[in-house]
Amino acid sequence: MLDKIDLSKSMEKSDYKEWMEKMKIQFGEIQRKCRNLDIPVMILFEGFGASGKGTMINHLIRPLDPRGFRVFTTEKASEEEEMRPYFWRFFTKTPPKGKMHIYDRSWYLGAYKYDDLELDEIIQFERQFTDDGVVIIKFFLAISQQEQKRRLKRLESTPNTKWRVTKDDWKNNKNYKECMEKFDRMLVQTDVPNAPWTVVESTDRRYASCKIMSAVINRLKAAIEQKEKSKCITDLYVDGVTGDFANGVLQGVDMSLTLNHKEYEKKKKNLQNRLSLLHSKMYQDRVPLVLAFEGWDAGGKGGAIKRLTDCMDPRGYHVIPVAAPNDIERAHHYLWRFWEEFPKAGHAAIFDRTWYGRVLVERVEGFAQEDEWKRAYNEINNMEKHIAKSGAVILKFWMHIDKEEQERRFKQRQETPEKQWKITDEDWRNREKWDEYEKAVDEMIVRTSSAHAPWIIVEANSKLYARIKVLETVVDALEKALLQ
Amino acid sequence: MLDKIDLSKSMEKSDYKEWMEKMKIQFGEIQRKCRNLDIPVMILFEGFGASGKGTMINHLIRPLDPRGFRVFTTEKASEEEEMRPYFWRFFTKTPPKGKMHIYDRSWYLGAYKYDDLELDEIIQFERQFTDDGVVIIKFFLAISQQEQKRRLKRLESTPNTKWRVTKDDWKNNKNYKECMEKFDRMLVQTDVPNAPWTVVESTDRRYASCKIMSAVINRLKAAIEQKEKSKCITDLYVDGVTGDFANGVLQGVDMSLTLNHKEYEKKKKNLQNRLSLLHSKMYQDRVPLVLAFEGWDAGGKGGAIKRLTDCMDPRGYHVIPVAAPNDIERAHHYLWRFWEEFPKAGHAAIFDRTWYGRVLVERVEGFAQEDEWKRAYNEINNMEKHIAKSGAVILKFWMHIDKEEQERRFKQRQETPEKQWKITDEDWRNREKWDEYEKAVDEMIVRTSSAHAPWIIVEANSKLYARIKVLETVVDALEKALLQ
Repeated sequence: MLDKIDLSKSMEKSDYKEWMEKMKIQFGEIQRKCRNLDIPVMILFEGFGASGKGTMINHLIRPLDPRGFRVFTTEKASEEEEMRPYFWRFFTKTPPKGKMHIYDRSWYLGAYKYDDLELDEIIQFERQFTDDGVVIIKFFLAISQQEQKRRLKRLESTPNTKWRVTKDDWKNNKNYKECMEKFDRMLVQTDVPNAPWTVVESTDRRYASCKIMSAVINRLKAAIEQKEKSKCITDLYVDGVTGDFANGVLQGVDMSLTLNHKEYEKKKKNLQNRLSLLHSKMYQDRVPLVLAFEGWDAGGKGGAIKRLTDCMDPRGYHVIPVAAPNDIERAHHYLWRFWEEFPKAGHAAIFDRTWYGRVLVERVEGFAQEDEWKRAYNEINNMEKHIAKSGAVILKFWMHIDKEEQERRFKQRQETPEKQWKITDEDWRNREKWDEYEKAVDEMIVRTSSAHAPWIIVEANSKLYARIKVLETVVDALEKALLQ
Repeated sequence: MLDKIDLSKSMEKSDYKEWMEKMKIQFGEIQRKCRNLDIPVMILFEGFGASGKGTMINHLIRPLDPRGFRVFTTEKASEEEEMRPYFWRFFTKTPPKGKMHIYDRSWYLGAYKYDDLELDEIIQFERQFTDDGVVIIKFFLAISQQEQKRRLKRLESTPNTKWRVTKDDWKNNKNYKECMEKFDRMLVQTDVPNAPWTVVESTDRRYASCKIMSAVINRLKAAIEQKEKSKCITDLYVDGVTGDFANGVLQGVDMSLTLNHKEYEKKKKNLQNRLSLLHSKMYQDRVPLVLAFEGWDAGGKGGAIKRLTDCMDPRGYHVIPVAAPNDIERAHHYLWRFWEEFPKAGHAAIFDRTWYGRVLVERVEGFAQEDEWKRAYNEINNMEKHIAKSGAVILKFWMHIDKEEQERRFKQRQETPEKQWKITDEDWRNREKWDEYEKAVDEMIVRTSSAHAPWIIVEANSKLYARIKVLETVVDALEKALLQ
């Protein structure tokens, strides 16, 4: 895309003023409309060094209501960020509904170092947001080798700006052609219809600034028009498989498995000792651990988690109880609140209920649209693959009890004063939808169980048996990851 | 996906009969509806060795009108196929509108050997068809290690079927777990909402057969429903960039470049000699060459092509004149007819007009819907990347003349009896849309010029200059590819 650009483009001052006057008014109006229509917007600035990204962002935000946008600068990853999966720091900075986030450099920062695979990860990353209604506008600012040299020299000539020029800047200026080819490969591969690039000839700042604002206005106008029309669903995917031919992964589970107290205590002691050592080894080796717990109400998630954390150093783990999303969370992509919580290297995050709520309760109760939860399997698989690639061990437990056992436990809770808080009307209501939930669990487990993030179905009619199985699975997986 | 499947599922004979009776009638009806609605369908069968893919296909097609479907078997690539890009043999076998193509193994054949990158290429490959309205139904047939062993033994015990069991089959049976993990990784990564997998428990053939037919019926029913609704466009991409801020790649072109006859002859002789040698070197080294010619009417494509082929061995090249697509071509994906023509290793294909018609004439004349041509840039970039990866040299020429020169040439053609056939009313009509075409050319060149498939803008007001530039570009690129 870059090799064909005419970098000599410029604009007269009088034309510039006229353009800007007109566009500023429009842009302010459009920002208000986007906010009213709850449209989230991401605007990315990438480009050559000294191509004027900062200046362009300043020009762009001038007409905007400062409460409606935020600017983020992406630099070399901090120590904290280095300890997370690559997309962590970007996902956590994505805009809620109605807001505009502007990025001075973005997730493309790492794109040189990247082979094609990671560019495809970027495509997936962006797609999950555009599928969710986010508008992504991507600018690439181009200047010539000579112009870059001139700007670097000028920056160096003033004490105020001298610090902004690094050795890398000069190195890149010398290897301009090579840089350009790398950028070009990146641009061509990630120029997708749902998030296309606009290359901006940036030699003349007036021209560049007008082009950028005009492009933003046009894209947002189209988004507003689209949003005002009815929502439309294209993906064809339907459950080809109906009731009779469901995979029935929960059907084959042996619910009679049990364990006596003596054996339980013996096994528990042994496993907890090992887990304790593994947890500190994890910390030393900087391996993150993600444990995800889902299961029927009263399936024993809490008890199983307790038996894990009993022997773990509290500085190295974090239990995240997941309830219905709050207002702020609902304004973001449904995965946003989980990205916040993923563990850094060497730490463990234990989720009591998880991102799978999208394909369980949100599916069954209709909180998510059909196309939304159907898309979610693929989105979740991509996310877990990304986290596993960063070195994490991921295990997902489905705590499985049968309907009779649940009733027994519910009644027991109601009759035990200190447990009454654990049982609500909602629990009884959910119970009525047992079959629908079972169908959702079935599809979830089949579509999202993978080698790097397997589902473990825990036979949990016996609490003792279940707790040992969970402990054992975690210990085995960590030994495999740390000691082999 | 595979580790959670219950392979013991089965069905009573009486139930089977009842199910099949009902479904067969439905299925025949649905096939007719799909044909009437012009819905193309691809049904893929993948699975473990001896899992019964052939039998399942036989059961599936029994109720169908044989004129409406075709079955393709994918085996190890033939010598012919080895000489083409990987997707060639699959693209050329994709269904036209209203037809059903069934694949006994498919483009997933190579997926073990593949790292993640190529699985992403598969995702892109499928997406271009589902975006185009094709329904893709993917089945994976699973059996256990014991069952596979039993079946292989039984096949070996009869002379009729003994040949079907290979050494690889036994090797895979021994390494069952490893095979399963590879398959599983493949399934999880390619289980996308637009083309999801259905895992079929295939121990019992009655059960498997019913599950497959039921899934096909459900998917096609949904597709019919979808098609009967109005078409709907989701991708937000719009030209953020309007007239004033177009990249204007054609503006900067120096139309005064020219060449005198003497220099032309001298240069031509030298370049043609070199090209002649390079062409046979290409053949020896098995490097394919793709030359794509686009340009204004009367821009001199024919003349430039002639100067290339003059010095090439006719057994090693093929000129493809591209006109408006015929009925059969129009019934397929727009890229289909070009895949047929891509050169095999060591050969050259010279296209006089190309797949870029989608974003030129089809865009300007409204033959392609807006979302169709907007999607095309990305589809074309992916295709060219795939072809380049197979080792091909790709060069794309835009033969550029100005409006005055075109008028001069049109008039000359009208006045020269032997050239009158070259000029039609349509040429004059196209000329009226010069500005719209220029906008389309501008966007095309910026969005699809890449290091592995660059656009070369040829200043063609002087025919002599243009021919030399084309020759020179081809010679340089081949020398770089073959001699360095």
